[in-house]
Amino acid sequence: MPTPDPRFDSLPTPALILDEARMRRNIARLERHVTGLGATLRPHLKTVKSVDVARVLLAGGNGPATVSTLAEAEVFAAAGMKDLAYAVGIAPQKLARVAAIRAAGCDLVVVLDNPEAARAVAAHSRACGQSIPALIELDCDGHRSGVDPAGTEPVELGRLLVDGGAELRGVLTHAGGSYAVTGREAHAAFAERERLAAVTAATSLRTAGLPCPVVSIGSSPTAHAARDLTGITEVRAGVYVFFDLVQAGLGVCTLDDLALSALTSVIGHQREKGWAIIDAGWTALSQDRGTAQLSVDQGYGLVCDEAGRVLDDLIVVDVNQEHGIVASRPGSDRALPELPLGTRLRILPNHACAMAAMFERYHVVPVDERAPLKVWPRFGGW
Amino acid sequence: MPTPDPRFDSLPTPALILDEARMRRNIARLERHVTGLGATLRPHLKTVKSVDVARVLLAGGNGPATVSTLAEAEVFAAAGMKDLAYAVGIAPQKLARVAAIRAAGCDLVVVLDNPEAARAVAAHSRACGQSIPALIELDCDGHRSGVDPAGTEPVELGRLLVDGGAELRGVLTHAGGSYAVTGREAHAAFAERERLAAVTAATSLRTAGLPCPVVSIGSSPTAHAARDLTGITEVRAGVYVFFDLVQAGLGVCTLDDLALSALTSVIGHQREKGWAIIDAGWTALSQDRGTAQLSVDQGYGLVCDEAGRVLDDLIVVDVNQEHGIVASRPGSDRALPELPLGTRLRILPNHACAMAAMFERYHVVPVDERAPLKVWPRFGGW
Repeated sequence: MPTPDPRFDSLPTPALILDEARMRRNIARLERHVTGLGATLRPHLKTVKSVDVARVLLAGGNGPATVSTLAEAEVFAAAGMKDLAYAVGIAPQKLARVAAIRAAGCDLVVVLDNPEAARAVAAHSRACGQSIPALIELDCDGHRSGVDPAGTEPVELGRLLVDGGAELRGVLTHAGGSYAVTGREAHAAFAERERLAAVTAATSLRTAGLPCPVVSIGSSPTAHAARDLTGITEVRAGVYVFFDLVQAGLGVCTLDDLALSALTSVIGHQREKGWAIIDAGWTALSQDRGTAQLSVDQGYGLVCDEAGRVLDDLIVVDVNQEHGIVASRPGSDRALPELPLGTRLRILPNHACAMAAMFERYHVVPVDERAPLKVWPRFGGW
Repeated sequence: MPTPDPRFDSLPTPALILDEARMRRNIARLERHVTGLGATLRPHLKTVKSVDVARVLLAGGNGPATVSTLAEAEVFAAAGMKDLAYAVGIAPQKLARVAAIRAAGCDLVVVLDNPEAARAVAAHSRACGQSIPALIELDCDGHRSGVDPAGTEPVELGRLLVDGGAELRGVLTHAGGSYAVTGREAHAAFAERERLAAVTAATSLRTAGLPCPVVSIGSSPTAHAARDLTGITEVRAGVYVFFDLVQAGLGVCTLDDLALSALTSVIGHQREKGWAIIDAGWTALSQDRGTAQLSVDQGYGLVCDEAGRVLDDLIVVDVNQEHGIVASRPGSDRALPELPLGTRLRILPNHACAMAAMFERYHVVPVDERAPLKVWPRFGGW
């Protein structure tokens, strides 16, 4: 065990720790890759939900970015961000808030995949006297939402928007299915699937005389693996800012890239069972079990010492509300190390979005290792 | 589908809905049962994390109650509550906060199951000139923490506390294992196991000349099923205030008792798959899958109409961050009902504590059905 870091002494545990150097490296890596392929990166702010992180992500500028809730749109718009895509299908009752955010000077774009939504966006555009822009969501892999990119729906939805008084901004797709495969080759194939779906629909729209200025694709695995972005204007990704055990397990990053962890304290032992009990339960770690389907199951998180060094084979094997049970991975021949009462550990997340969502603030370990921790608030809600 | 409830019109979805009438019925039922058996109910406030709900739970009084974090202890103590047990094993670095809460007039008791913690509580008692009271945690079912109630540890820990200058308040146990069995008979057996463990250790302490004024047991399943509380001074339970699909699946309550739900809006469909897409993902429903091990797997939650009536066989089959997929239960022959875009639904939780933890406030449907909704804030953190 390392010497305790005095900067952590005043933190009640559990606490969310963010390694700023790793985060900046992750941000720069994908920015370089996507711009190198001729597209624009539109980071997804759903992972970070923090104006401070967004400022780093957007290199001090005000866009473009992606959001997953109108609460995010409102907070980031109020912070000056001018170019946001709300990448969750719009419901009619949300259009008044969308229009208010737009009226305050933010170019907020909505997403839809059905005629009812297209008619509602058009009707609201007419009613409020401003053309609300919309992206048509495409289903490139059967994962969740979206219309068939090769079918007639993109043009039908496009016409409903344009003829009805809304703005057709383009098309958007997300290969959520890329999380079901591992390795750069497999992710590159999904990236090409995203690209083909988006370009196919964009071509249909343009052939029909409709506009399609934005052709948007992305997921963290495909964004890193993409080799060709011909015809694509922008790439979206979110979790790469922090990375996590799922992304590492999928081969998108290494453990060394993981920027987020939960600081916790040992509060007891069941030594004959090889358990240490920690004060990080699911209220801190979340109940995400995203590595359960991968080749290495990390339980509810991989255990590091206070300095962030992985303690091999030690994972959180179970969680209750405010308790976690730390033990050696099933099948491991390593014994539980000495972890005296009060020892501080750090737990790496299966899913960074899910762990971060459980906390109200980041405690940021700055790039300068001797500098004091910074506090960056997070927000939630809708 | 019922007529839309205009009281929900101004709520952004997802939103957390609390049925006050059901909640009050749940509270009264367990209070009656436990006091009828001659013990005191010490409700666990970890589920509710709300001063408003706590006021109802404690019948307007200021205790006794149980908490799971020092943040809860601080909030409830500041609201005037005078008798709190912090039922998660104490770490030495938390004792300064404990002493501060006590110095402000709240009788906060800590829990421990190891000599290091007992020595730390004793040392801190001497250092701050006040005897900090502690309960010795017992392991009645191999579930998590605690010492063997029939072993020598309770007396050893008791002596460390008393001889070192702390206060030995008594013993505490929790049959977390009761969640692994179904039905009143099985839960009654676990309740008796809790009782025997606690009474055994209390007798050891008293025989050794040590005090044991408090003999505390409890879990929601055992608290409701207990038939004999001889020798027990208090019973703890938390989730019963709201109940949930796990408790219903275990036979502790019926679906009609569930007081909590997430209001959500339909944002799309994949009709050929029988899916409706809703705007409640895991940020609202949590990722709790507590019914996966029970005889009826409720996915990520059971779907109700806006009025709270269960739509038979309709569950949330998958969640992403801000998306849920609603479909018929696997094996069901029921087709997805018409759920037009924008339809509001309510999702019952697998685990009420976990769903509630995802929200910042309750929107309370008052007992008077014509009265406007109330807003009761929640808090989180540590």
